[in-house]
Amino acid sequence: MFISFEGIDFSGKTTQVKLLEHYFIGKGKKVKLIREPGGTLISEKVRSILLDKENHQMSIETEILLFSAARSQLVREVILPYIQDGTVVITDRFFDSTTAYQGYGRGVSLDAVQQINKFAVGECIPDITVFIDIPIEEMEKRKYGKNSRALDRMELASLDFFHKVREGFLSLSKTENRIKLINGILPVEEIHEIIIEEIKKIENRQQ
Amino acid sequence: MFISFEGIDFSGKTTQVKLLEHYFIGKGKKVKLIREPGGTLISEKVRSILLDKENHQMSIETEILLFSAARSQLVREVILPYIQDGTVVITDRFFDSTTAYQGYGRGVSLDAVQQINKFAVGECIPDITVFIDIPIEEMEKRKYGKNSRALDRMELASLDFFHKVREGFLSLSKTENRIKLINGILPVEEIHEIIIEEIKKIENRQQ
Repeated sequence: MFISFEGIDFSGKTTQVKLLEHYFIGKGKKVKLIREPGGTLISEKVRSILLDKENHQMSIETEILLFSAARSQLVREVILPYIQDGTVVITDRFFDSTTAYQGYGRGVSLDAVQQINKFAVGECIPDITVFIDIPIEEMEKRKYGKNSRALDRMELASLDFFHKVREGFLSLSKTENRIKLINGILPVEEIHEIIIEEIKKIENRQQ
Repeated sequence: MFISFEGIDFSGKTTQVKLLEHYFIGKGKKVKLIREPGGTLISEKVRSILLDKENHQMSIETEILLFSAARSQLVREVILPYIQDGTVVITDRFFDSTTAYQGYGRGVSLDAVQQINKFAVGECIPDITVFIDIPIEEMEKRKYGKNSRALDRMELASLDFFHKVREGFLSLSKTENRIKLINGILPVEEIHEIIIEEIKKIENRQQ
């Protein structure tokens, strides 16, 4: 099974990814967690270019191509082999992030973004995508509660941008059956239970 | 004016680029030489990923996306501003290399490669592309005359691959009017004169 998590920053994806990992481990399954962009030698090198504040001149087209390059390598070197091996693969972000952040967020042609997404992943589409939705105000509240770490280049972008990104995710969740919208304001444990219910539907379908 | 040079390795592109640079300088023009992949802070970082032998697991899709990312940045940060400034821009390789090496050479869908090329460069198409053609046997002869430097990852690829790449360039030169095919076996000075004739045609057209 291949599962992606999506949502704006501070939506709680990482917490839910870990809870879901424990769920599968408890059922005796092998689980592989993935972080985007990154996860292979090449993809980590690309990640460091993407997140380095020195690279502030980066064009939006370059950004899309670099995210897609990192993802393309991750799919072929890690995700596909693990799936083939029967391991559950859970990724924190996948191509819907490119559509939401660079397509909806930065106004790049959605057609072009989706062509490049398709080229980058081939047939490697998630069985289910968990979209954890929080309002932008909630993102801000959670962000300033986390003074301990420096914000990276992506996180420094303007609030207007994040509104468009959220609308992008909402719009995608209406057209793509595989994307399950979950209210990220709910308590952590409740969100986890909703995710497990959705996972069980997929498991039943695959049996 | 924007000029690209294309051809397989050791075809003599670099020599001709320099001769053409001197031609324009002699006419009092400003010239900007470009090396692909590279030419900007970001593109040079991508270049080092592409050429590093450590990255031997790189998938062909990743390779295309990385070349296109480097090019996309080069177009927006360097080529377009220089052209706008009235400078003659000459590049040693451009998107036809991706079509020839990754499309024809490695068998990736030409449609997909051309979509990504288009996304990477936008409206920034060369006024003329000089394709210097040599047979693969000539490439081999020239290569082993240059024992002094180590071959990089691209140059280590098999000969069969280079045959396909050459066929790709030949095929492109038949369908794209902007691509001028020149016999790379001719003496250096003769090739230079043919190139100057072609450049003069463009100059007359632009006046």
